[in-house]
Amino acid sequence: MFPLTKQFEFPEPCCDCKNFIHLCNPHLEKMKEDILYHFALGTGTHDFPALFGDVKFVCVGGSPSRMKAFIAYIAEELGLESSGCDYPNICAGTDRYAMYKVGPVLSVSHGMGIPSIAIMLHELIKLLYHAKCSNVTIFRIGTSGGIGLDPGSVVITRESVDATFKPQFEQVVLGKTVIRSTNLDEQLTKELMQCSIEIGQFHTVIGNTMCTLDFYEGQGRLDGAICLYSEEEKLQYLKEAYDSGVRNIEMESSVFAAMCNLSGVKAAVVCVTLLDRLEGDQISTSHEVLVEYQKRPQKLVGYFIKKSLGKV
Amino acid sequence: MFPLTKQFEFPEPCCDCKNFIHLCNPHLEKMKEDILYHFALGTGTHDFPALFGDVKFVCVGGSPSRMKAFIAYIAEELGLESSGCDYPNICAGTDRYAMYKVGPVLSVSHGMGIPSIAIMLHELIKLLYHAKCSNVTIFRIGTSGGIGLDPGSVVITRESVDATFKPQFEQVVLGKTVIRSTNLDEQLTKELMQCSIEIGQFHTVIGNTMCTLDFYEGQGRLDGAICLYSEEEKLQYLKEAYDSGVRNIEMESSVFAAMCNLSGVKAAVVCVTLLDRLEGDQISTSHEVLVEYQKRPQKLVGYFIKKSLGKV
Repeated sequence: MFPLTKQFEFPEPCCDCKNFIHLCNPHLEKMKEDILYHFALGTGTHDFPALFGDVKFVCVGGSPSRMKAFIAYIAEELGLESSGCDYPNICAGTDRYAMYKVGPVLSVSHGMGIPSIAIMLHELIKLLYHAKCSNVTIFRIGTSGGIGLDPGSVVITRESVDATFKPQFEQVVLGKTVIRSTNLDEQLTKELMQCSIEIGQFHTVIGNTMCTLDFYEGQGRLDGAICLYSEEEKLQYLKEAYDSGVRNIEMESSVFAAMCNLSGVKAAVVCVTLLDRLEGDQISTSHEVLVEYQKRPQKLVGYFIKKSLGKV
Repeated sequence: MFPLTKQFEFPEPCCDCKNFIHLCNPHLEKMKEDILYHFALGTGTHDFPALFGDVKFVCVGGSPSRMKAFIAYIAEELGLESSGCDYPNICAGTDRYAMYKVGPVLSVSHGMGIPSIAIMLHELIKLLYHAKCSNVTIFRIGTSGGIGLDPGSVVITRESVDATFKPQFEQVVLGKTVIRSTNLDEQLTKELMQCSIEIGQFHTVIGNTMCTLDFYEGQGRLDGAICLYSEEEKLQYLKEAYDSGVRNIEMESSVFAAMCNLSGVKAAVVCVTLLDRLEGDQISTSHEVLVEYQKRPQKLVGYFIKKSLGKV
C-alpha cells in the first residue's frame, strides 16, 4: 500500500493548503480516540479545539524550566499576564514534557536529542491537527556550541545538516533508512534576522546548524568518558564543518525541520552559542552569564511574535 | 594518534581490571578540573570521592519522578530511610537530569532516547571514575513495548539489537560511523532471572531488546503524525523481530550496553512491557495499572540489591 521506495525520500508536505496542519497518516482517520501518551492528553478526555484552537505560535526548547520562563516572558511582552503570574503545566499528568499556553502562544519542552524531540513533535503535530489550528509557526529556541563565533552569538539556522554536513535527516522506518529534507522557511529566517537588527542587543548570524546524535564523540569533544581521536583530528573536523557553512552544533534541528516540513508547518531554529568549540569543549562560563545568553533566542522570537501581532 | 580504523570497531574494555571504572579517554588526565555540565557538578566544586565513593549500584531510568520513587523504595527495603523521608536531588542546579542517593545506591534519570541517555552516561561514568568507585553494577530499569507477551511482563535483556535485529550500536564519531558491541553480562542476567523466580509476583522472560531511534515510525506504530506504511507491513516487521528473538522494544539499551561495555562496568537492562505491539499501538491501560507495572523492574532490581547485600 505504501511501499518504502525512493518516491518517499523527499515527499511533498502532506497537505492541500499551507495554512492548515495536515497529517501524513491515513490510519488516524480510523481511530475513535487518540491518546497523546507522552503529553498525558487525549481526544477522548480533552476538548482540543477549545483548549488549543487559537494557537498561532509554538515555541519548543529542551529545558522545561526555560519553557516555563518563556511563557512568563511572552505573556508580559504581549500584556497577557495571568493575575497570579502563574502558568499551569498543561502536561502535569506526566514528567516527560512540560507545556504552557498564553493567548496564541504555546511553549513546550522537548528534552535532549532527536528521539526525544521527535516523540514530542509527533504528538504536538497531532494536537494542532485535532485542534484545527491554522497558520501556525513553530520555533525551536535552544542552546548550542558555536564554531568561530563569540560565545553569546545567536544563530538563525539556514539549513540543518547532518554529521557529514549534508542537509538531510536519516529516518529509520521499519528497519529501513529513508532520507528526508531538512528545508526551513527562507522568508521566516530573513524576517527573524531583521528582528535581531531592530532589537540591536546581541550578535546574530544566519548559518548552517549541524545536528548530531551525541554531545561528546559526535561533536568531537575531548572531555567525554570515551574519546579515541586526537585534538588535531577534532580541530580538523570542526574546521571542515566551518568551511561547509556550519556555525553551530546542536542535537534536535534536523528532525524538527524534517517533521515540520512534511506537515506543512512554517518553522525556524534560533539557538544561542554557549562557547566557541574551536577554543574548547567545557562550558565553564558563569551561571549568570549563561542565563543571560539563554534569554537571547527568547527575546528574538518574542519580538517576532509581538511584531507579527502588530504590538511593536 | 587514534585513527578511526577497523581496530576500534569492537574495542576491548579500556581497563586493566574489571573492578574499577576506567575511562577510554587519555585526554582527561590533562584537565585540571572536569565540569559535568548536565549534572551541574564539577571536580573543582564537589568532592566526588566523599560524595559518591561508596556507590556500588546505579539504577537509571527515563523519568525523574520514577527515579525519585525508586530511591525511596530502595531506602525502605535496605532500612536506610531518611528521617524526613525526603531525598534531595543532587542535580538540583539543572533540570536536565535528576539524581538521588541512599547508601550504596545511586538513582539517575536519563530522559528519552539514545542521545539523552548517552550524555548522562558520559557524565555518570566520569563521576564514578573521579569518585574512585569499584565493583559497580549499573541497571537500566524502564518501560517498553512488548512483542507476543502479556502487558506487565518483565523482560531482562539478553542482547540489545538495532532496528535490523543486529546486536550492535552505530556510533557516529567525527562524522564517521563506528560499530560497537552491545554485550551485556550473561551471569548478571541469569542472577536477575533467579531473583524474579524467588519473588514470584510477575511473569519475567530473558529475551532480546530492540533499541530504536524513534517511538512512532521507528517502532512501526500506525498512530504517529507521519505513517507511510500499511498495517500489514507493520505486522510483518514486528513478526520478523519476534522470530529473531526480540521480546520488547525501547529506545536506550544499545548505547547503554555499548558504553558500559567499553568502560568495563557490569550492566543489565530490565524493562516492563506496557502493551503487546502485536495487538495495538496506543497505551490505553489505566493510570493505576501502568503505575503498578512500572514498579516491577524496581522490585526486581531492588530484590537483587538486597540479596547482594545479604539482606534477603
